[in-house]
Amino acid sequence: MHTASASIGMFDSGLGGLTVMQQLLRLLPNEHIVYFGDTARLPYGDKSPATIIRYSLENANFLLEKNIKMLIIACSTATAHALDSLQQTYSLPIVGAIDPGAQRAIETSKNGRVAVLGTKGTIHSQAYQKAIIERDPHAYILPIACPLFVPLVEEHFTHHPAARLIVQEYLKPLESQHIDTLILGCTHYPLLKELIRQEVGEQITIIDSAAACAEQVAKLLHGSNLDRSTCNQEPHHYFVSDDPHKFQSLGKSFLGLPIDKVELSTLQPATSNSR
Amino acid sequence: MHTASASIGMFDSGLGGLTVMQQLLRLLPNEHIVYFGDTARLPYGDKSPATIIRYSLENANFLLEKNIKMLIIACSTATAHALDSLQQTYSLPIVGAIDPGAQRAIETSKNGRVAVLGTKGTIHSQAYQKAIIERDPHAYILPIACPLFVPLVEEHFTHHPAARLIVQEYLKPLESQHIDTLILGCTHYPLLKELIRQEVGEQITIIDSAAACAEQVAKLLHGSNLDRSTCNQEPHHYFVSDDPHKFQSLGKSFLGLPIDKVELSTLQPATSNSR
Repeated sequence: MHTASASIGMFDSGLGGLTVMQQLLRLLPNEHIVYFGDTARLPYGDKSPATIIRYSLENANFLLEKNIKMLIIACSTATAHALDSLQQTYSLPIVGAIDPGAQRAIETSKNGRVAVLGTKGTIHSQAYQKAIIERDPHAYILPIACPLFVPLVEEHFTHHPAARLIVQEYLKPLESQHIDTLILGCTHYPLLKELIRQEVGEQITIIDSAAACAEQVAKLLHGSNLDRSTCNQEPHHYFVSDDPHKFQSLGKSFLGLPIDKVELSTLQPATSNSR
Repeated sequence: MHTASASIGMFDSGLGGLTVMQQLLRLLPNEHIVYFGDTARLPYGDKSPATIIRYSLENANFLLEKNIKMLIIACSTATAHALDSLQQTYSLPIVGAIDPGAQRAIETSKNGRVAVLGTKGTIHSQAYQKAIIERDPHAYILPIACPLFVPLVEEHFTHHPAARLIVQEYLKPLESQHIDTLILGCTHYPLLKELIRQEVGEQITIIDSAAACAEQVAKLLHGSNLDRSTCNQEPHHYFVSDDPHKFQSLGKSFLGLPIDKVELSTLQPATSNSR
């Protein structure tokens, strides 16, 4: 049984999960985080469910060795494909990146018409669609895969005119759909929020799934008395599967804070490989 | 010792290497190809040299079991980082995707001023720069990293107005540089050739590194009497590390031919993992 003084473990395919971590530290400044970014195998958005489940198990195994009291899957694609497998495999509380955003969308929408932007993997998995329908069987959902958003964010093209054209292209299906709520269903997308806001106008409420996920974690920790009462003094731990320096220098804009130190960690295969 | 009847093995991070295969089959229609696309870990362009060397050794080990007489690294990033390691590890002939394009650029350029477009990994490795300077120490080289080109190609955005803006952005450094030769230093880039041509005009010769690589292979096989004299009747073999169906359906536009059958293969780790 873990105590409140243990860390919170979280993983993402790369940098995107740092937007969840930013929101989490805003709500829970006392907590200590162990973050794993699978930068040697990113992106996850367009890979198959079987591959994403394998990667997620490997990432979770790594974090489970770090004395964590809770695991956050800070990546919508990994949540979509692997949340069930991880919950069946491990006994600690696991929070994914999808349910909290779906819940907030249903609470927010006045007409029950919700758009979801996500990676191909997230959209094709129908994880958001299912999470919304569970909560409101009459909801109308418009799912839109936006596979170029992650590369645009990773390459700092969020303020380039090409990014606006790509946002316009992906948001075309919104026209005359009377959507009143839009979910940013990928932890990279908050960095495109301003541009998306300009395209959809003020009539549509934009749900940041990273913020919703962080609030869910805070609620769960409070509810189970697992939140820290005294301030963590230790630097947060960051691990990646590829170049630590790149993560350290790019991570700042995702986290909104400097990152002191990043360690390289090659993962163990989760299962025996077959040929 | 392998005989002429053996296959040619080639690997790429994903689909891009099929542009090399297309050129190869044009020159050597009798040959039988075993292709491996590492789609579970793509893209390679922005990952570290150590990670790319590890992946390349794993890919090569897999192909070496398939009775191949020659190995082609149909990916510029993998060539940039791993060609030396592979040549030190294996005794069969290995052809990379960089030297042939560099050679052709030097033969083509009249003023010795050459631009190279590539992934971040290829450009930062300076592999093209070194290959050109070895051949012409007085050459002027303008290297340009174009990290969004691969996602644009993979997402079929090559004819979208956003692709033109991104091409224009990346080609800005060409202005007033009096470049007369430009190397497409990534096997994905031939699918953007038309757009690049429209931007640079007819005064600049565009070198397709995939075509140059295929010609080098043809020359080597002829020279060592390892080319097949009778036509291969067997379907080419395609293996990938992630979803075979996706590779099969997208591969057509890269190869210019239908792809009959693709098999999934999870690779063995090349070395013991360390934590």
